[in-house]
Amino acid sequence: MSGWLAVAGLGPGDAALITPEVRETLAEASDLLGYGPYVARVAARPGLAIHPSDNREELARARHGLALAAAGARAVLVCSGDPGVFAMAAAVCEAIETGPPEWAALDLRILPGITAMLAASARAGAPLGHDFCAINLSDNLKPWPLLARRLALAAEADFAIALYNPRSRARPDTLDRAFDLLRGAVGGARPVLFARALYSAEERLEIVALAEARGAMADMRTLVLIGSSRTRLVPRPRGALLYTPRSAA
Amino acid sequence: MSGWLAVAGLGPGDAALITPEVRETLAEASDLLGYGPYVARVAARPGLAIHPSDNREELARARHGLALAAAGARAVLVCSGDPGVFAMAAAVCEAIETGPPEWAALDLRILPGITAMLAASARAGAPLGHDFCAINLSDNLKPWPLLARRLALAAEADFAIALYNPRSRARPDTLDRAFDLLRGAVGGARPVLFARALYSAEERLEIVALAEARGAMADMRTLVLIGSSRTRLVPRPRGALLYTPRSAA
Repeated sequence: MSGWLAVAGLGPGDAALITPEVRETLAEASDLLGYGPYVARVAARPGLAIHPSDNREELARARHGLALAAAGARAVLVCSGDPGVFAMAAAVCEAIETGPPEWAALDLRILPGITAMLAASARAGAPLGHDFCAINLSDNLKPWPLLARRLALAAEADFAIALYNPRSRARPDTLDRAFDLLRGAVGGARPVLFARALYSAEERLEIVALAEARGAMADMRTLVLIGSSRTRLVPRPRGALLYTPRSAA
Repeated sequence: MSGWLAVAGLGPGDAALITPEVRETLAEASDLLGYGPYVARVAARPGLAIHPSDNREELARARHGLALAAAGARAVLVCSGDPGVFAMAAAVCEAIETGPPEWAALDLRILPGITAMLAASARAGAPLGHDFCAINLSDNLKPWPLLARRLALAAEADFAIALYNPRSRARPDTLDRAFDLLRGAVGGARPVLFARALYSAEERLEIVALAEARGAMADMRTLVLIGSSRTRLVPRPRGALLYTPRSAA
């Protein structure tokens, strides 16, 4: 019997947003791996071995999953959101590229999930209705000059900009620097969405003008989204709608 | 009894990728709206009125859904992929902004789905593992100079680039022009993924160098993804893995 490794996205947190594909794969698993809080989202059951790990150990976790699969396990490595967006799928690919040749022959399944910017967009209206980009602010290996250049070009291209992992303990001031840079590029009027802990009891949506946006308004459970020049705010009795029209004209 | 309008993402096409939230909402619906082929994905049942429409009638379809909800219907407007990414959520927001004031008071629910680039990424490896952008090539109202400028800036920012709706009858040469422009900006070595009819019996993945990429390799069911400078191709017995490492260093 041959093993496999699935890298599965659990979405923003609500079970109603976990795909049947992921749920069925979890039901077949012999081994469950992932960052502790994500592993804790999956119900324990007899026959499912649990291997929670620390957030910083991505490559080691990927290798662990591949080694288990190579030994015949039906291993599922769970991520929040989608595994392909700033999450574990890239670490697994890197582990395969740099690992023993037999890992390249394994049955690898990557199972998509609802990534944070889609959940934030759904809660707020449709800010990603026109061209957009997604930038990871948490990468400790990304030097500020590179990040600054990318943000400036994204603003010049008039993308709506989704910022993932906007605040980390290691780089607490990056988000404020990003806001400063964007204010210099596009002024202070753009709407900025702070979407925190989506689809949980602590969900909070806040929309402020870029002039008022502060890094302290976000934490690691927040997705920050800066509108393009065309993004509009429509007042409503039940909270404003934030949307970007599809057409550029 | 008050009505509501849900704008629901059906994902790439496979029922295993439709979220429970969408499935449960469809089960409660009295009225189903959408582009004909998407409406056809939902099983008919007694008590569910079907309102299929043509692809070009987005604003009219949005207004129809809002009018039904205002009259007390439990209306679901279905989209392929995610409703917020180049789909119907923005049209509904626009219809609310420009419609009668009572539409702004309606219960509007936007239900996220697996958008094409996440499905393509999952099938190919992890090409969106680092910063990326998404550009809609089909918008007939987007003039070529604006699109060209955005593509050039995206290349300069070193984003992986997902191109939605790459070929339309109205603008059959746009994708070839985009490839030409990108070759001029970054050379011909970048891997280009053509991901067609994902999660269907006709699924086809093709990866070629940008030098070999041609518009004719895509149709409207294809998602095109151009790697960044860091995107790597890992040969495997079961098909190469395409991925972009998380770190920029």
